[in-house]
Amino acid sequence: MSRFFSDLVKNITPYVPGEQPKDRRFIKLNTNENPYPASAKVMAAIGSVTALAARLYPDPQVTELRRTLAAYHNLAIDQVFVGNGSDEVLAMMFPAFFDRTDTIAFPDITYSFYPVYAALYQIPYVAVPLQEDFTIDFDDFPENLKALLLANPNAPTAIAVTSAEIENQLRRRPETLIIVDEAYVDFGAESVVPLTCRYDNLLVIQTLSKARSLAGLRVGMAFGNPELIRALECIRDSFNSYTVDVVAQRAAKAAYEDVAYFEKTRAAIIATREKTVAALTDIGMKILPSTANFVFCTWPGVAGEKVQQYLRDNGVLVRRFNKPRIEDWLRITIGTDEEMDEVIRLLQLFGTPA
Amino acid sequence: MSRFFSDLVKNITPYVPGEQPKDRRFIKLNTNENPYPASAKVMAAIGSVTALAARLYPDPQVTELRRTLAAYHNLAIDQVFVGNGSDEVLAMMFPAFFDRTDTIAFPDITYSFYPVYAALYQIPYVAVPLQEDFTIDFDDFPENLKALLLANPNAPTAIAVTSAEIENQLRRRPETLIIVDEAYVDFGAESVVPLTCRYDNLLVIQTLSKARSLAGLRVGMAFGNPELIRALECIRDSFNSYTVDVVAQRAAKAAYEDVAYFEKTRAAIIATREKTVAALTDIGMKILPSTANFVFCTWPGVAGEKVQQYLRDNGVLVRRFNKPRIEDWLRITIGTDEEMDEVIRLLQLFGTPA
Repeated sequence: MSRFFSDLVKNITPYVPGEQPKDRRFIKLNTNENPYPASAKVMAAIGSVTALAARLYPDPQVTELRRTLAAYHNLAIDQVFVGNGSDEVLAMMFPAFFDRTDTIAFPDITYSFYPVYAALYQIPYVAVPLQEDFTIDFDDFPENLKALLLANPNAPTAIAVTSAEIENQLRRRPETLIIVDEAYVDFGAESVVPLTCRYDNLLVIQTLSKARSLAGLRVGMAFGNPELIRALECIRDSFNSYTVDVVAQRAAKAAYEDVAYFEKTRAAIIATREKTVAALTDIGMKILPSTANFVFCTWPGVAGEKVQQYLRDNGVLVRRFNKPRIEDWLRITIGTDEEMDEVIRLLQLFGTPA
Repeated sequence: MSRFFSDLVKNITPYVPGEQPKDRRFIKLNTNENPYPASAKVMAAIGSVTALAARLYPDPQVTELRRTLAAYHNLAIDQVFVGNGSDEVLAMMFPAFFDRTDTIAFPDITYSFYPVYAALYQIPYVAVPLQEDFTIDFDDFPENLKALLLANPNAPTAIAVTSAEIENQLRRRPETLIIVDEAYVDFGAESVVPLTCRYDNLLVIQTLSKARSLAGLRVGMAFGNPELIRALECIRDSFNSYTVDVVAQRAAKAAYEDVAYFEKTRAAIIATREKTVAALTDIGMKILPSTANFVFCTWPGVAGEKVQQYLRDNGVLVRRFNKPRIEDWLRITIGTDEEMDEVIRLLQLFGTPA
């Protein structure tokens, strides 16, 4: 260990993303990427960047893309923030709103980057246990929180709460900032983006990595009232003035403009998910109700590690979190029909007595 | 002000980047961009990204690009870190190495983002005054610093120190981390990257925004001993796993592979700079010795604001910092020969009695 390490580096445990294999070809269902390519209009937008544009700094305010996003969601442009992936937006949200004297809360089973951010910024947090069936009971969350952080649908469970339930919390907790991470919202859950016009204690995070097939370009957003957006801009401008490059700005704009492709691909993913859920249920797996582009499932009585290794041995990567309550569950991204047919075939074989 | 703002947001003053004009066409010499377009090989690399690659997360370890950078500088791959612009690398360096109980130092006149980072992370710092002629006297820096942060060549002065002077400090201050920000090093100064193999208290920061014509793509690097790089990775992985998108990774690799284009364009900029310095000296301007892609100059007895406004009125953007000692100085980026001829013509006119 270098004598120059900060105390933070000595103590922190970073987030570990799902494997991005470089050599062997896998059916890759471990990081919730979209199985469909980026839209042709996105690729045309990438191709439109000239060598002269590449030499200039990008627009630090991301104006054109924010205008498109604002129009799409029927908001004003000053209600929109854009960052280098929704992870960066989350990472900037922590210092924008939380001091070391605040307490925030999120479910015990949720996106595992949240506790890492809390450690990075040394913000005290409460990890509130989900119910036995992995649903949320909001009454379990303490009063007087500075913030309540909620992935909706939740990851890795895939279970969503309704917009009405969130609005109820916004009303009941006016002094608590409620942050809703809607990374997976486009696959069947209700977005609370429209509520940002009515509640100043709501911040909504979204991404282009999932429903817009653009994980490779790193674009995420926050929607909220203009004051909340201003705080995010203040941190961004104290960290890195230009976080979203010129190619990503144009690609993201094109992705939002190509509504037809978005609707077609997300409908395909939802249809494949429903077929997958039916087939896996048929062979005896237990699957939580999903409104995401992944399913969270387990084989009762079988170690999750064993199932994961079997799939890997047969060329399929899925994600498992080695944590209490969920170590026997697998998070399987919904791929194409062909990919899921292969997963179903493999799991049927696994379940058949030799 | 929102009741949700953190104390940090209430108190911090963000960095203000140079204007990126959207409407009117300017000769843009205010943000030290390269006047030459990105290389044709870079544009081909951008065009090689497929719609299927765009849907996948980029390689979080940035392996291919780091391999290219390591080979270029004759280092091992674990001596190389890549971030979303050198500003992000600097922003991650602060929490990687500095605690709130440490003291760091940098010159009083230098890249104005350094004190913003110190404020963001609440790291105490000493701003050590440059000499009257804007050179550095290292004896003015306190002993027992956690770190000494040095832009070389310095910005906005454009003055460089030698590699030997830095090595002398590395030897004299083994318990101080010496960070050398070499954003502009390729225009005539000496790089200390080779010294990272011999000194474990040296971290060197570079960027593709200046000499590689890629400000629009946002790629910056750090070079140092593997332990220092590991600390940066630890912070990166606690902040945002994928900071460099798939397009930027490929573009940056191609930029480093196209050595001929890099050599041609940087030689052109150096030649234009020398012509510009001669012409501005001829008309009575005072110019600091520059090894950068910009010159720092003043018209003795004339308010800098007046000269800047005159140039702006005539279609030329240059940068001025409204700070003690330098408020009458202009930082003028070196553009093409044609652009600099126009600047020289305008300044000649300005200096001619009516």
